[in-house]
Amino acid sequence: MPDFETIEPHAAEALVAAALQAAGARPAIAQSVAQALVAAEVDGQAGHGLSRVGSYAEQLRAGKVDGAAVPKVTRLAPAFLSVDARGGFAYPAFDLAIDAIVKTAAETGLAAAGIHRSHHCGQAGRHVERLAEAGCMALLFANTPKAMAPWGGSAPLFGTNPIAFAAPQAEGSPLVVDLSLSKVARGKVVAAAKRGDSIPEGWALDAEGQPTEDPAAALSGTMIPMGDAKGAALVWMVEILAVGLTGACFSFEASSFLSADGGPPGVGQLLIAFDVERIAGGGFRAHLQRLTETALAQPDVRLPGTRRLARREAVAREGLCVSAALLREVRGLAAS
Amino acid sequence: MPDFETIEPHAAEALVAAALQAAGARPAIAQSVAQALVAAEVDGQAGHGLSRVGSYAEQLRAGKVDGAAVPKVTRLAPAFLSVDARGGFAYPAFDLAIDAIVKTAAETGLAAAGIHRSHHCGQAGRHVERLAEAGCMALLFANTPKAMAPWGGSAPLFGTNPIAFAAPQAEGSPLVVDLSLSKVARGKVVAAAKRGDSIPEGWALDAEGQPTEDPAAALSGTMIPMGDAKGAALVWMVEILAVGLTGACFSFEASSFLSADGGPPGVGQLLIAFDVERIAGGGFRAHLQRLTETALAQPDVRLPGTRRLARREAVAREGLCVSAALLREVRGLAAS
Repeated sequence: MPDFETIEPHAAEALVAAALQAAGARPAIAQSVAQALVAAEVDGQAGHGLSRVGSYAEQLRAGKVDGAAVPKVTRLAPAFLSVDARGGFAYPAFDLAIDAIVKTAAETGLAAAGIHRSHHCGQAGRHVERLAEAGCMALLFANTPKAMAPWGGSAPLFGTNPIAFAAPQAEGSPLVVDLSLSKVARGKVVAAAKRGDSIPEGWALDAEGQPTEDPAAALSGTMIPMGDAKGAALVWMVEILAVGLTGACFSFEASSFLSADGGPPGVGQLLIAFDVERIAGGGFRAHLQRLTETALAQPDVRLPGTRRLARREAVAREGLCVSAALLREVRGLAAS
Repeated sequence: MPDFETIEPHAAEALVAAALQAAGARPAIAQSVAQALVAAEVDGQAGHGLSRVGSYAEQLRAGKVDGAAVPKVTRLAPAFLSVDARGGFAYPAFDLAIDAIVKTAAETGLAAAGIHRSHHCGQAGRHVERLAEAGCMALLFANTPKAMAPWGGSAPLFGTNPIAFAAPQAEGSPLVVDLSLSKVARGKVVAAAKRGDSIPEGWALDAEGQPTEDPAAALSGTMIPMGDAKGAALVWMVEILAVGLTGACFSFEASSFLSADGGPPGVGQLLIAFDVERIAGGGFRAHLQRLTETALAQPDVRLPGTRRLARREAVAREGLCVSAALLREVRGLAAS
């Protein structure tokens, strides 16, 4: 039996949507979630891709995620929108927010949307890339369930809290920055624990706040922020931005994105978008091109986010290559 | 002769303003710059404090900075302001931008101001702190003359590009995050070179893009971003945010903030502010308090930016302690 199987992205979307519908999601919601998970898988972010289908289905069945929730947008101020994800998946709320923010920014120059009662935002870069495709320079700040201690502390308080940024370019796809604020993904520690390997010092702290090379101790402790003390300050910033204006749950209050236990995570996300034509006319793209061309004149330099573009081309040529076991799991859910 | 001298902040401001006026700055501009430099000195950011007076005066005399420039604000869109610093110091442009952005955000919920034809923004955290004192949650992104290579490269392209953030709290001073994106300040490499010490690997690269422990090689090379590859992606983000919308100079085009050579640096800065009462009512501050109290319940945890508050208290008690040689230099300039 092969370890990997190749599937067309559209077929994967239909399969994921069927799995989520079988677990109770309404068709339009299942479709929105399936598109986001498959897009992440295509872009090489497997941690936000098909690997999530099983836990999403479990959370639907447990009622932790409301598969019928229709998000709602309220314009709290001329340039600020509040989007209530209503305990559903984040993706339909992002679809609504992106659409509303583009229209608002065309009017006011810049606009923001704070999403609350939300869930796992998945591939953070994809949301801002969509805003950039619609002509906006965009930022996203999101909080996630607790995994990192405040600097000097030992108990988890903050999530790995991603930051994403995108800007439209003169040619081709937007320039995209997408990073979470832990030095490494927690999944790398889980993988080391499974293999029985140690982890490098600097990745994680144990439950007493001491550096550890033992993955088991790390998993009961906290992840270290990228950039150490400086990154730890950025984590505060993202936490407050993501939830401050909408009253969403802080990372330390949020339930897991993975298990079906507990109530809805209720995290928050903040999108900010600038309509570059409205503000800067055609000058923005030409100006940015001067920077990217100067950077690329140096050997071995790439623009941020280019790995996803290479992956998209490969998938368009060869189809999406996914673990056969994972596809079997999704097919099983779809047939259930 | 003592190495240090104590001076009252107001006396220091008057002295700095006199030094800048003697070099050709108009009184109101000299006053704005003096306030900012003394505030940075009080807050323990000596690199953005009185140590700058000599080079500022030199740049005034050389005509690199226009000491008579009156900044101008244009409302390009309902929520977006463009502020032209007109080749003068950044501080009067920030005074104007902060005032205009607070008024605009009260109307639209959030507002941004892009400053161009600008200069050294000094203590980045102070600008957003002023916005927070006026009731806004605020962000600042700034670019600075080239000092860091794009990831994988060897030639400087980006500045150390600071990020600052502030939020109003229920009690006391705003919570402030203020960091530049190099792992360490370039001044630390300069100091090691002066002492004849080596520098730790990971701080800087030589001119060929190779890691170096030789401070001289580092000074002809580039600084390493905080958080390595992740920080390098953030540098792209800040560069584009700081200059993209206003057409300000990129870091690689900007002249030095320190020497009197060349034309004006012409860098850019972007301020974004959310009127928290307008958007979230009184809930914002109480919500944030839940986070800060939970963090402070852990031993050895401090909020970001608290060192400045301790310094302010010490200065209020004991006066400002400054190098006697530096004060002699400023007095000499004021008497010239």
